[in-house]
Amino acid sequence: MAEESVKLYGVWVSPFSRRVEIALKLKGVDYEYSEEDLANKSPLLLKYNPVYKKVPTFLHNGKPLAESLVILEYIDETWTNSPLLPNNPYQTAQARFWARFIDDKCIPSLWKALWAREDQEKAVEEAKEYLQFLENEVKDKKFFGGETVGLVDIAGDFIAFWVPTIQEAVGVKILSEEEFPKLCQWSHEFANHSLVKEKLPPKDELLAFFKSRHF
Amino acid sequence: MAEESVKLYGVWVSPFSRRVEIALKLKGVDYEYSEEDLANKSPLLLKYNPVYKKVPTFLHNGKPLAESLVILEYIDETWTNSPLLPNNPYQTAQARFWARFIDDKCIPSLWKALWAREDQEKAVEEAKEYLQFLENEVKDKKFFGGETVGLVDIAGDFIAFWVPTIQEAVGVKILSEEEFPKLCQWSHEFANHSLVKEKLPPKDELLAFFKSRHF
Repeated sequence: MAEESVKLYGVWVSPFSRRVEIALKLKGVDYEYSEEDLANKSPLLLKYNPVYKKVPTFLHNGKPLAESLVILEYIDETWTNSPLLPNNPYQTAQARFWARFIDDKCIPSLWKALWAREDQEKAVEEAKEYLQFLENEVKDKKFFGGETVGLVDIAGDFIAFWVPTIQEAVGVKILSEEEFPKLCQWSHEFANHSLVKEKLPPKDELLAFFKSRHF
Repeated sequence: MAEESVKLYGVWVSPFSRRVEIALKLKGVDYEYSEEDLANKSPLLLKYNPVYKKVPTFLHNGKPLAESLVILEYIDETWTNSPLLPNNPYQTAQARFWARFIDDKCIPSLWKALWAREDQEKAVEEAKEYLQFLENEVKDKKFFGGETVGLVDIAGDFIAFWVPTIQEAVGVKILSEEEFPKLCQWSHEFANHSLVKEKLPPKDELLAFFKSRHF
């Protein structure tokens, strides 16, 4: 394995490329990181991810992969220590379902609700409707899959860390202790997990970033 | 396994519930099928798929699953004969990438291009841009994964069978032999595969269905 090479093209503020960093950290895999400038994408990013031209783009021994959930499953199948998915097809299917639900429904609705200029009330209501499904799913578990961080938790990094930060930056409250106590508890557990927190962006810098974008 | 029960809630015209039927047929799994009326969804569909309230909804020994790609992977992991995914993490990741690309980009753009009332030229151009990626990916292979039908082919059932049928119904040509010879060859192979074709809707009925919706 001496010649193994792992490379990630990411953006420090992106919850999607941070997902890959968190997974690699949990697995104990060393990697080279290349920060992309989205206003001036590198020729290598465009070469390795010609379909989406986005971060994260991942390279393992020169072979490229794109789309964070696809990359997470690849990492889990390649480095089998600290599994991110349960050893049970039904539970695995459910984890995939919730990870995809976060991408397809929660993130777009939260983003819209956090930044809405019009119809904010409706957008907030929709985002809360989706969050309620996650609240019911995490219940009193420490993480979505139980005692250890797994696919759904990592997919949820935006909800656990970005949402509270953006809420602070823009003064909108969607994810609150009162309405989503279990999700807030999970968010706290996840963001303070000893390995995860090493791979989250510095809170003050993220806050400053979003404050500077809130006019 | 005498007490095993497999049930699918579907709609005959849906390429998504047909995906599940094709996978079960390839695996040789018997199942009970329940046709849903989307204008009056059954209480069981709503109970088993409370998040999306959509077909396909799948039940294995009473345990529900939703989202066709999630169900396909579950089927592949549960009935391991006739694998739908390659025995290689990198190729598996690529298959997941293309299956998701079909859902996220190809189907929405094709649907829009086929039915557009305005800006059709632009919509067709975008759909063709996405199809070109699939044309380059299938190359001279019989199926996306090689010699046997796999996840990407099944995910592509809309492109292989519905698109040519809708094209005929509405008189728009996007997927043509001239522009996409390899994809058309693949479409022919897939739609005429001995097991797959048993689970595709009757061509004349599908054509009549879409003609009746084209005003």
